[in-house]
Amino acid sequence: MRLTVGLAIFEDIAAGVLDDEAAIKAALERAIEAGGFTLYDLRLVRFSPQGITGAAIVGESHLTIHTWPEERKLFVDVASCGDPAGVDRALDAIEKALPGARMSEVEVRTLGHSPP
Amino acid sequence: MRLTVGLAIFEDIAAGVLDDEAAIKAALERAIEAGGFTLYDLRLVRFSPQGITGAAIVGESHLTIHTWPEERKLFVDVASCGDPAGVDRALDAIEKALPGARMSEVEVRTLGHSPP
Repeated sequence: MRLTVGLAIFEDIAAGVLDDEAAIKAALERAIEAGGFTLYDLRLVRFSPQGITGAAIVGESHLTIHTWPEERKLFVDVASCGDPAGVDRALDAIEKALPGARMSEVEVRTLGHSPP
Repeated sequence: MRLTVGLAIFEDIAAGVLDDEAAIKAALERAIEAGGFTLYDLRLVRFSPQGITGAAIVGESHLTIHTWPEERKLFVDVASCGDPAGVDRALDAIEKALPGARMSEVEVRTLGHSPP
């Protein structure tokens, strides 16, 4: 197996959006669709006093999202054993799905090796 | 916020263990405990013909695990906005929880910055 993992931070998103479960779920769903992933399970947890975490299990691996409304930031982690381009497309979709979002940090890593 | 993300591959684990939902769930729970994380949600999906994915939402961020029984490998992704040492402890716990597991690759990244 060979895994591509994309880690990204997005800034400048309205705090209200980052604390809105429907908006975060929709952004995650758009990322899953854009990445060409097959969704198996999607869960969201809303924290007190604010902040949301979403975790999606997909056939290709996973997508997780964590929001910090007080800093107007979110973190996305996309891991895929499929086409590496799907990871980039998923990250782009998050940026497009959330008004004002600007990717301020991104790291894409490759782990694992194909069997001999 | 400041995030520590640990990405690791473990090899040489018996295929039967990697396809055993109870064993993978237990390993994830031990990692959560060792990391000092607060569990909010834990889901497992079993794939056909083999392989398991687990995703845990914790107060500090998340832990995910993916197994490839046919290659005797698993991948773990631990993200935490808490004590960075918790990420290392969680990865160590996975290695100890699964007989024969040997960490063959690991990358620990730090993302985000404290607000000014």
